[in-house]
Amino acid sequence: MKQVVEGLTREGIPFEVFSDVRVEPKDSSVKEAIAWSRPYQPDAFLAVGGGSVMDTAKLMNLYTCYPDADFLDFVNAPLGKGRPVDKPLKPLIAVPTTAGTGSETTGTAIFDLVSKKAKTGVAHRNLKPTLGICDPLNTRTMPAAVKASSGLDVLCHSLESWTAIPYNERTPRPANPILRPAYQGANPISDVFSFHALRATVKYLPRAVRDPDDYEAQSEMLLAATLAGVGFGNAGVHLCHGMSYPISGQNPTGYRHAGYDLPAPLIPHGVSVAVSAPAVFRFTGASNPDRHLAAAEVFGVDISNVKRESAGEVLAEALTKFLADLGDQPAGIKDLGFGSEHIEALVEGTLPQARVLMLAPGLAKELETERDQLRKLFENAMSH
Amino acid sequence: MKQVVEGLTREGIPFEVFSDVRVEPKDSSVKEAIAWSRPYQPDAFLAVGGGSVMDTAKLMNLYTCYPDADFLDFVNAPLGKGRPVDKPLKPLIAVPTTAGTGSETTGTAIFDLVSKKAKTGVAHRNLKPTLGICDPLNTRTMPAAVKASSGLDVLCHSLESWTAIPYNERTPRPANPILRPAYQGANPISDVFSFHALRATVKYLPRAVRDPDDYEAQSEMLLAATLAGVGFGNAGVHLCHGMSYPISGQNPTGYRHAGYDLPAPLIPHGVSVAVSAPAVFRFTGASNPDRHLAAAEVFGVDISNVKRESAGEVLAEALTKFLADLGDQPAGIKDLGFGSEHIEALVEGTLPQARVLMLAPGLAKELETERDQLRKLFENAMSH
Repeated sequence: MKQVVEGLTREGIPFEVFSDVRVEPKDSSVKEAIAWSRPYQPDAFLAVGGGSVMDTAKLMNLYTCYPDADFLDFVNAPLGKGRPVDKPLKPLIAVPTTAGTGSETTGTAIFDLVSKKAKTGVAHRNLKPTLGICDPLNTRTMPAAVKASSGLDVLCHSLESWTAIPYNERTPRPANPILRPAYQGANPISDVFSFHALRATVKYLPRAVRDPDDYEAQSEMLLAATLAGVGFGNAGVHLCHGMSYPISGQNPTGYRHAGYDLPAPLIPHGVSVAVSAPAVFRFTGASNPDRHLAAAEVFGVDISNVKRESAGEVLAEALTKFLADLGDQPAGIKDLGFGSEHIEALVEGTLPQARVLMLAPGLAKELETERDQLRKLFENAMSH
Repeated sequence: MKQVVEGLTREGIPFEVFSDVRVEPKDSSVKEAIAWSRPYQPDAFLAVGGGSVMDTAKLMNLYTCYPDADFLDFVNAPLGKGRPVDKPLKPLIAVPTTAGTGSETTGTAIFDLVSKKAKTGVAHRNLKPTLGICDPLNTRTMPAAVKASSGLDVLCHSLESWTAIPYNERTPRPANPILRPAYQGANPISDVFSFHALRATVKYLPRAVRDPDDYEAQSEMLLAATLAGVGFGNAGVHLCHGMSYPISGQNPTGYRHAGYDLPAPLIPHGVSVAVSAPAVFRFTGASNPDRHLAAAEVFGVDISNVKRESAGEVLAEALTKFLADLGDQPAGIKDLGFGSEHIEALVEGTLPQARVLMLAPGLAKELETERDQLRKLFENAMSH
């Protein structure tokens, strides 16, 4: 941030700093940011921070370019109106300072819609930053806990996009290409990015968390975050992310994650996605055993004698061990303060995540069956 | 082509077909194409074919958008004036019908500049097609010989971009980013594409050539061609390509490649790049033994006991075997009709390829040393 301010000042470029971004944005914090930028009407935006900062900047850009739009106009349906962005926005330069979100590569901005007790967002390719500046010097001072939780976001971005419903099996097909969702389903291009990011994360995340001087691991994790962003930004994510939104949004007992020094309770995004990963991939394994086995192999599992019907279980076990070895991670949503009495609310908070649930392999289209499947997924996610 | 004509006609879109593209374009054939399109001034271009067609279409687009430009204005320096393309061109849709060039992903167009006895071209990101339609149905009827030679182009795109001088070691650095060359040197993004394409080519090219009904191999090769295009289109190629231009341009004894039924002699582009590959990677091995060993491992070599100083030799041997097993390939430029009496002309035809030679690891900047290195490279490329 200091370098940005010095650079802009030196070049004589006038600017104003908005620094009231909320960690894990809420609709209220986003609306405050928009109210700040709309009268200002800057020529360009520059975001320096993690996913919260970059996503808030995307929404400031969008709503400043549409000064008369109502906040829910562009928010993903069914929670919002899902209006398409039909013109280019102002240039946005994104400088990530965490290695997780990949937001510098995507057209997605996520926030907590408090009235609905669920996370949602806006997803359109025009929100994509013009330029991302990914410099590992900017992630060097991340606390270990932030390294871990942002890195777990990379892990789930890569695993979910790798196992998402393939682009040519996604239904319903849009009548016109302009109506295609930002998330297309797994495809041969996203696969290259997602699988590369998966391998890098499994190899480098434990090193980056353990040793603050392991600059190679930090660099590789920032690159993995960006590559995973390209992968999931095209292919999409599914159940870990869909289920994470009510987990972090509801936080019924005021859980505070170790290593995060904040005034309010917080389940960091990466923690909330990874906590259900063993349950999720146990469930999705049957949809594409080959891909789940290939993923398990990345974790070092010898898959030569594993039966295809055990693919989900084997990957779930590998993930459980990976999370335990990483340290300071909840061994299920029970450790985050959820009990069986919270499951109905979690299910109801997940159901509106149509944008990602439509890419979940094996999830029923029929509402009651889907509700039942989600209930079982949360039950299984209680502890791993 | 039939489907394109039917589709445009059905939609009532007026069009004209230019079908006089030359296989391996010459400046004269490109000029004829430009002379055809300049008075026509179409709103968009649609290229259906291999690299020759797509590259000719790029140049038609460029010079139709600059109706007063002289042909050499945009041609790479030092053969041309290297004028930068300073405005967007018309939309160009590229539909590859071979699995090789990757031209649908790049801003490069190559042709034979007859007066200089060398291949050269135009390279600028604005030449990049707006859209590439990569459908393996369009490569299904490729003759086996075309599958082999276009696939060898993919092999060299991936190997050369993987081993090119890294982006942060390329000299001289441009004074302004707008002056950066299209070819940046190997970088963490191009590496992902190049290495993936290398693995796919080694696995699927022999199958695609051997069995015309192996649709999986054909699909994977088309994808590999496109991915390698993204890789080398950013990182660049080096010696195999630099040396190939005089090889195919000079063809002193009128070599005709088996399986190509054409009125004039022809050394197909892929054949002309791959023929020197063993000599090239034997030479470049010392620059980055790890990358050469990783590449050799892709060919199935057990590298666990290979010394780092043997990296180039081991990769050269793996390439020699791969080319021999593929079948119908020259075992060196001697088989293409070159003798020691042609070496000086080959060296002089390679020296102007500054655009790619600047990315060749281990090649001297000093002219006499460079000349001597190229002489030895061609001598070593006589037979493998």
